Amino acid sequence: MFDIIAFDADDTLWHNETLYTVTQDKFKQLLSKYRDTDGIDQVLYETEMRNLQHYGYGIKSFTLSMIETAIELTGARVQGREIREIIGFAREMLKAPVQLLEDVEDVIRTLSASHQLMIITKGDLFDQESKIARSGLADYFTHVEVVSHKTEDTYKALLAQHHIHPGRFLMVGNSLKSDVLPVVAIGSQAVYIPYHVTWAHEVVANPHEERQDYLELEHISQLPALVEQLRIEN
Amino acid sequence: MFDIIAFDADDTLWHNETLYTVTQDKFKQLLSKYRDTDGIDQVLYETEMRNLQHYGYGIKSFTLSMIETAIELTGARVQGREIREIIGFAREMLKAPVQLLEDVEDVIRTLSASHQLMIITKGDLFDQESKIARSGLADYFTHVEVVSHKTEDTYKALLAQHHIHPGRFLMVGNSLKSDVLPVVAIGSQAVYIPYHVTWAHEVVANPHEERQDYLELEHISQLPALVEQLRIEN
Repeated sequence: MFDIIAFDADDTLWHNETLYTVTQDKFKQLLSKYRDTDGIDQVLYETEMRNLQHYGYGIKSFTLSMIETAIELTGARVQGREIREIIGFAREMLKAPVQLLEDVEDVIRTLSASHQLMIITKGDLFDQESKIARSGLADYFTHVEVVSHKTEDTYKALLAQHHIHPGRFLMVGNSLKSDVLPVVAIGSQAVYIPYHVTWAHEVVANPHEERQDYLELEHISQLPALVEQLRIEN
Repeated sequence: MFDIIAFDADDTLWHNETLYTVTQDKFKQLLSKYRDTDGIDQVLYETEMRNLQHYGYGIKSFTLSMIETAIELTGARVQGREIREIIGFAREMLKAPVQLLEDVEDVIRTLSASHQLMIITKGDLFDQESKIARSGLADYFTHVEVVSHKTEDTYKALLAQHHIHPGRFLMVGNSLKSDVLPVVAIGSQAVYIPYHVTWAHEVVANPHEERQDYLELEHISQLPALVEQLRIEN
């Protein structure tokens, strides 16, 4: 029934947001000698949002936003060696082992026996390719597309490029905003599998108001059975 | 004769390396109160090379390398407001108008009437998409591919993905290492159009030893005539 099953990567196939959360805690710890740590998250988030249009997504962007926030929140008193520590946080994030979510490898292996699989991930090209390579999953995917946005137009262009009819495309991901709503809007099917943390930027204000025709699973291990069920029904 | 003519972007369609050179001069000026500026270029270059495996190419990577170099070369005495200035350099680079090389728009318009055109550019996805959008040239290109490396395997994969026979593919660019030698090696044709500055990382040690069957032009304005000549000869 599906020509391609596509997966988001971060927080769908492997843990990602937790890595940012852990780093952000270290960042607050670093600034704690200058000020109360309350409110640091908020200022960092605002800096990230302001910089998104200049930098795009990814670890390098996040690092530049941490450095800028540190300068701002300390009245430029932050020391060179502390900036060096922040750069060290980035280095650790970039080298962190890719931790697959539970059952991901089994699910991907199973589905790859019956379907062409694809990764469609948003973010920094270099970060994402590096994570895919380190994940050990690369060989299961026929195509990998790293995109800078995930809008209806992005999905339309990708489907056209790969000659896939929207009715024969399934997208699986943890973001309603990026992986589910735009996909449903172009007439394809989407499976939403929430991750336990969602970056504020990806939160949909009123998911129930926006609720359309998509499927939701608690765990990726349920995906092969769902795909089989869809096949039988159609 | 060609199904696709593909172009490198930076320093082939628009000026890029000069933007880095100008920024690097500002960076040296900034550090001049701490030390002699001799040797700063070399340390920055070494930092960039060391970081390439972690960060990849692009303005954000260059900025993080400038910050790291500033900390290193000042014994961590560099001030928060100076780091903020370095971040400001990045912001200027990201917002700098895209300056097309002479005659590029005419050449691209002319060739687009007879051929499918493609951009194959290495670097940061976000930077490159932003420059393509701002260049005013986007509509002339059927496909844009931003890649993290330009090796023989990269070109093979792109040609397979787009169903192009290597014998019917022409690549045009300013880097022997990235745009010419790997393309010729897979049996396609390449046109080398040198730019007046080449980033040290892209310099081929002994170009004449490596010289293979590629074409060289002084100026992109000569390209349509060359393409027509190749068509007649074949």
